[in-house]
Amino acid sequence: MRILGIDPGLRTLGWGVIESKGSRLSHVANGLCRSDGDDLGERLLSLHNQIVEVIAEYQPDQAAIEQTFVNKDGAGTLKLGQARGVALLTLAQAGLPVGEYAPNRVKKTVVGVGHAEKEQIIHMVKLQLPGCLPKGADAADALAIAICHAYYGGAKALSLREVRA
Amino acid sequence: MRILGIDPGLRTLGWGVIESKGSRLSHVANGLCRSDGDDLGERLLSLHNQIVEVIAEYQPDQAAIEQTFVNKDGAGTLKLGQARGVALLTLAQAGLPVGEYAPNRVKKTVVGVGHAEKEQIIHMVKLQLPGCLPKGADAADALAIAICHAYYGGAKALSLREVRA
Repeated sequence: MRILGIDPGLRTLGWGVIESKGSRLSHVANGLCRSDGDDLGERLLSLHNQIVEVIAEYQPDQAAIEQTFVNKDGAGTLKLGQARGVALLTLAQAGLPVGEYAPNRVKKTVVGVGHAEKEQIIHMVKLQLPGCLPKGADAADALAIAICHAYYGGAKALSLREVRA
Repeated sequence: MRILGIDPGLRTLGWGVIESKGSRLSHVANGLCRSDGDDLGERLLSLHNQIVEVIAEYQPDQAAIEQTFVNKDGAGTLKLGQARGVALLTLAQAGLPVGEYAPNRVKKTVVGVGHAEKEQIIHMVKLQLPGCLPKGADAADALAIAICHAYYGGAKALSLREVRA
């Protein structure tokens, strides 16, 4: 099964595709979708188009996305929410079942503890996906989310709505 | 010029279409896009499809959307942000120039003061758009946003990004 992981963000959205066969995981591809400029609509459209391209190129069977950490920075939460909404819409348009995972669950799965530095995540992602070179911390996060989905979601991803609740 | 106003929301998204000829405004249509259920992706896809239908049916030339009020409710801001992101994407896909207006600017334009009750907005929208019956407070808000755009944006909507900054 091929899994697309997404770490949502407006300026930089990380993505990673892995292949899961039983308990064996392998790296397919990873990268960053970027958007900048003053026009928010154009930025969201650009992110959407880039995600559409990734899906078309790598043909994932399922997807996984990080549950957004809501903090006191309302403006930041709003920006992230807008990018996340576009990512979720794009995955739904592609008919992909989507698992959602809290950041500390992703870290606990990939690193072993709920709190981990970026460097540690990159290191563990490389260990678990031989030959993988993450194109940045956001792409490593996206691969970690895909790994988390391989363990918790897998073929049962359609029932992952329970995880979200 | 035909203007589509949008009051973003995940559960209920209000929309209103008005026609602006010089200083004369007239009502075209208004309504609510609703989404519910457990699957966030499906809800966002449903909102997207409903907005696409409104654009196809009423063929607006420009659009206007409320700037989201960021408050201390992070989870609420995130939900709203996701719906708002999908609305902005849908408008950008349709190639519509979009004006963004702060809630108190909309109220000041339509009601005369920056703080107004829902009933007052509904009343003033009906006064300014003869024959209009808003299908709820969110639809009235959307019409108010469209009215605000008719006054401030108009043919200059393409430069409205300045208003946002």
